[in-house]
Amino acid sequence: MDIVEFTPTRDQYAYTFGGVAPVMRIQPGTALRLWSEDAFNDTLKSTSDLASDKVDLRYVNPQTGPFYVEGAEPGDCLVLHMVDMTPARSYGVSSAIPFFGGLTSTDRTAMLQDALPDTTWVYEIDSATNTVGFATRFADADMQIALPIEPMLGTVGVAPPGGEVRSSLVPERFGGNMDTPEMKPGSTCYLGVNVEGALFSLGDGHYRQGEGESCGTAVEGAMTTTVIVELIKGAAPAWPRLEHDDALIVIGSSRPMEDAWRIGNVEMIRWLQELYGLHQMDAYQLLSQTSKAPIANVVDANYSTAIKVHKELLPAADAYSGIHQSLRALAQSL
Amino acid sequence: MDIVEFTPTRDQYAYTFGGVAPVMRIQPGTALRLWSEDAFNDTLKSTSDLASDKVDLRYVNPQTGPFYVEGAEPGDCLVLHMVDMTPARSYGVSSAIPFFGGLTSTDRTAMLQDALPDTTWVYEIDSATNTVGFATRFADADMQIALPIEPMLGTVGVAPPGGEVRSSLVPERFGGNMDTPEMKPGSTCYLGVNVEGALFSLGDGHYRQGEGESCGTAVEGAMTTTVIVELIKGAAPAWPRLEHDDALIVIGSSRPMEDAWRIGNVEMIRWLQELYGLHQMDAYQLLSQTSKAPIANVVDANYSTAIKVHKELLPAADAYSGIHQSLRALAQSL
Amino acid sequence: MDIVEFTPTRDQYAYTFGGVAPVMRIQPGTALRLWSEDAFNDTLKSTSDLASDKVDLRYVNPQTGPFYVEGAEPGDCLVLHMVDMTPARSYGVSSAIPFFGGLTSTDRTAMLQDALPDTTWVYEIDSATNTVGFATRFADADMQIALPIEPMLGTVGVAPPGGEVRSSLVPERFGGNMDTPEMKPGSTCYLGVNVEGALFSLGDGHYRQGEGESCGTAVEGAMTTTVIVELIKGAAPAWPRLEHDDALIVIGSSRPMEDAWRIGNVEMIRWLQELYGLHQMDAYQLLSQTSKAPIANVVDANYSTAIKVHKELLPAADAYSGIHQSLRALAQSL
Amino acid sequence: MDIVEFTPTRDQYAYTFGGVAPVMRIQPGTALRLWSEDAFNDTLKSTSDLASDKVDLRYVNPQTGPFYVEGAEPGDCLVLHMVDMTPARSYGVSSAIPFFGGLTSTDRTAMLQDALPDTTWVYEIDSATNTVGFATRFADADMQIALPIEPMLGTVGVAPPGGEVRSSLVPERFGGNMDTPEMKPGSTCYLGVNVEGALFSLGDGHYRQGEGESCGTAVEGAMTTTVIVELIKGAAPAWPRLEHDDALIVIGSSRPMEDAWRIGNVEMIRWLQELYGLHQMDAYQLLSQTSKAPIANVVDANYSTAIKVHKELLPAADAYSGIHQSLRALAQSL
Repeated sequence: MDIVEFTPTRDQYAYTFGGVAPVMRIQPGTALRLWSEDAFNDTLKSTSDLASDKVDLRYVNPQTGPFYVEGAEPGDCLVLHMVDMTPARSYGVSSAIPFFGGLTSTDRTAMLQDALPDTTWVYEIDSATNTVGFATRFADADMQIALPIEPMLGTVGVAPPGGEVRSSLVPERFGGNMDTPEMKPGSTCYLGVNVEGALFSLGDGHYRQGEGESCGTAVEGAMTTTVIVELIKGAAPAWPRLEHDDALIVIGSSRPMEDAWRIGNVEMIRWLQELYGLHQMDAYQLLSQTSKAPIANVVDANYSTAIKVHKELLPAADAYSGIHQSLRALAQSL
Repeated sequence: MDIVEFTPTRDQYAYTFGGVAPVMRIQPGTALRLWSEDAFNDTLKSTSDLASDKVDLRYVNPQTGPFYVEGAEPGDCLVLHMVDMTPARSYGVSSAIPFFGGLTSTDRTAMLQDALPDTTWVYEIDSATNTVGFATRFADADMQIALPIEPMLGTVGVAPPGGEVRSSLVPERFGGNMDTPEMKPGSTCYLGVNVEGALFSLGDGHYRQGEGESCGTAVEGAMTTTVIVELIKGAAPAWPRLEHDDALIVIGSSRPMEDAWRIGNVEMIRWLQELYGLHQMDAYQLLSQTSKAPIANVVDANYSTAIKVHKELLPAADAYSGIHQSLRALAQSL
Repeated sequence: MDIVEFTPTRDQYAYTFGGVAPVMRIQPGTALRLWSEDAFNDTLKSTSDLASDKVDLRYVNPQTGPFYVEGAEPGDCLVLHMVDMTPARSYGVSSAIPFFGGLTSTDRTAMLQDALPDTTWVYEIDSATNTVGFATRFADADMQIALPIEPMLGTVGVAPPGGEVRSSLVPERFGGNMDTPEMKPGSTCYLGVNVEGALFSLGDGHYRQGEGESCGTAVEGAMTTTVIVELIKGAAPAWPRLEHDDALIVIGSSRPMEDAWRIGNVEMIRWLQELYGLHQMDAYQLLSQTSKAPIANVVDANYSTAIKVHKELLPAADAYSGIHQSLRALAQSL
Repeated sequence: MDIVEFTPTRDQYAYTFGGVAPVMRIQPGTALRLWSEDAFNDTLKSTSDLASDKVDLRYVNPQTGPFYVEGAEPGDCLVLHMVDMTPARSYGVSSAIPFFGGLTSTDRTAMLQDALPDTTWVYEIDSATNTVGFATRFADADMQIALPIEPMLGTVGVAPPGGEVRSSLVPERFGGNMDTPEMKPGSTCYLGVNVEGALFSLGDGHYRQGEGESCGTAVEGAMTTTVIVELIKGAAPAWPRLEHDDALIVIGSSRPMEDAWRIGNVEMIRWLQELYGLHQMDAYQLLSQTSKAPIANVVDANYSTAIKVHKELLPAADAYSGIHQSLRALAQSL
């Protein structure tokens, strides 16, 4: 199986889902190796680079793509199997952007208080230990610790329905900036197709991230992602689904956060009904006793929550005819 | 070390935090073995027992306690080390109580739609495999699966401040009905004391529960809990903290759910500052890249979220002078 | 008709709904003239008195009461007709209490930013014009304007159900700190009785207040309130209702604010169904085209919203057998 | 002054803000008389026409426009003075669209309950009394009442920033589907310009609407709107502002609803600071004692709340150099 490599030029970056011409047309079954720029457009390179000087929130999360998938039509299910994610730079960066993040007032949770101090942290990669280094920025304490690299993509999505075009800061029904650590190597992502060609893109690589992405940014970094693209006709999920070797996952996104959680639960109940023929009430009960609910982000235009059921708790079932296992096997051959 | 055993009579059940005379006075350092009734007051024994007939939501989660801890004063930290939780009945029960739960309108998220069908599920314990049995109640599918018993307490709390008395359905600053799977054997719980004697109680045993407690009830069952009680003078946390062998945890409770998450984050930042002397911004950053955020409940009077940091990611530190480890060791001797 | 006068001594102030012995027992049909202290317990008398020095948020909104109403039983409807509210001091006070209010982070909408400047404004009453005087506190501009006195009570409530005791900062199903400008002279308030004797109290006089009470406090002042107390057996509303000469009103209280609004809508639909025998869907439609929805507070433990329908839009109907009109007439004779 | 008339053909309807080519280019100072189709695209003409059969929520609120305003650049302030709104059909229609509205679960406040009954109400206009007729649809009661026509536009907006394209169901920073009764004849609306030409459109006429638009739809109807378009260079407000003869108004839109309210408050504080040079804290205090806060909608993609201050409470000031008064005068001459 061949791999198509693609590194966008700066003028090819997309900052929206929808509204952008495809950078490439591909057939279902294609493997891509994609380079993506970091969320800050490579403007923060040292602790003296500050977001308030260099980051324009209308143009963050530059996307690699969109890709036009031949044959994809509204109502189909786009399948993106994440084969590998490898940091493409020797350091990652995080920033407490003024009036952005979970523990500060924002333009929407609008208050009158002053901003928190604009601060940048640089995390050098130690390849030998596969870690990134956290170092304090304030003199109160001198702590330097190594944290394991756990690569993930903040942003994976398709063009929205109804002619909408949404910023790459937005997580929604079409995927987008979900900022969930569940989007990691080995994941298969299922997205409903809304427009001809699906027009998917990805970006916003994180070398690691806590659940909730409290300060608004992860350890952000350029990433090389290998992904296999497939298409299932006529099987669009209502909200993004993910599959791991050991778990089924749905990502719900809305505000307030309980609505993100509700969306994820209702979609997972639907999935359990599809897999096992359960009555809605039995699926509700089964989910109630088995779900994990790790928060994804509480900082973006919508908040996102994962609803996750470990397969070992459920009877055996092949979601989407076992395509996740097939792609896992195929990935080994790349 | 002796263990004081206590099983309340029915007229000793408490249904509030605060407002109830203590059932017993104990010294710090006491180990208790406590029997607690199930959340439904043992009214649901078979699938034909329905919540709408038998459950009065003003009187659920009967508490065992409260216990008056000698020497406890406002501003102190009550320490409850959960040595063991053992199901005290051969079956657990779950119910989709009409207009109660996460995926139905309620008296507060008030809507005009009809209730979901009032349904009861009974989970028989299989001691050989240490599992409870889920069985479908609707004819659409016949599924019977065994789920591992993972005992926890839904409700652990002290009397509230300011003279308030709160229902045992409420999770708050004083603990209460947090419904988090993190409250399990091996946990040490730290609660701020608000009144003389602390007046803690516990109950609402769950044989297992998913994160969020989607349908509003777990696999509810009578429980025998062994707990060692300690007291640290003058060290009250603002919100409930938990310690596991491998993690530090805070439980925030409020509505909307993002506020529960924010509370947990801010309290964890405070804890990290206490342990490592960090500036608030450095603690914010460190938390952002290391926290787990498993939702606890989205069904109670407040919603609850856990914020959790695994110790392996942090420099060694002895929270509360290492009392968790000491109590773990002591528990081995019981 | 006689009027019973009552001015509490300082040690008679109540700071909770429930949990307090009655100061007096009265018969239905009694008129009371009640003096109430201001929300700050008279601690802020000049602009140099700051809330951070002098206000303890656990002990604000001192209540005058509770009053035990003979014959009142759970399920009954307590009727409080507000005959008159007269400022009982020559000035009112407002304060931007640190970390309290609608445009600042709080202990629940927890963030890391510094507090806003602790500031006190004093509003002198001009009796000739029936106004209070706003004067700027910061040098940026010198503005002094007279605002009409529009007296109202922030807090009117009964003891909660289920043995709960709630702070006088809390608005809920039992009334309490609703902080709505609709609670004004000429209003009749209908509250469901939860305990024998109802145990109602009132306080938190406002010389005027904007909708939402943005900064967390109104023009707070001691108040003399004349109220006629009546009782309707067996007619408890689920949430507080108000009647004006020209309108029917419900006050819903919860978080997030959309739930306060939903509660008010559902209760108003119930009221319209009671008055006119409408199907729920027709009442929903009628309400949709006729309701006003002035926000009450976005700063208290729950947020409150009024749902209001002007009588002139509806067919004639006598709510509660016309008791509002009867009490209005009776009030003229006082 | 001439009036340019425009009635779109069906294939000219726009269903988004942004992403659509202008139907016309106009100079600032132009008066337009615009016909707009009803929110349902004229598909509901009788009570037997049901939304579930005939309404596609991706294509509602057909917009008349967009109009390219010569000289308008990002950062400018578009001024739309609403001279007149006249119903353009002999009846209006309202519908309880399944899973849409404030008192039902929706695709976002996702629950498992069945939908409310899909119901359509038709309101015939009585020109003699200037009323629309409400008539019950269910047999429980037979009520027919006349409600005053109070025409307003649900939807007035410009193209969003950052290349986004948003559905005409969305209220946001750019205006859009705010569904506020404050957008009525005599209002002047100020919107920040985000793209060259501003590209404003309007539609979604309501013959009347309650605050909150509880069931999700108003008395919807085709409308003829006369509007004068002006432009102020470099004076973009952050959120939509409105001016009436007697009041200043801001419309905030977000979820949860308290954030919509916060946005409106912060923007109004900014406006008061602009007009009077006040320190932020003094403007906060002044607003707290003077604002009205009538909810606009609790049913759209964002919820909207108006923050309103009556001019009679404030010192005289000419917002935007008194353009509202000038346009009111000019409107008389049309």
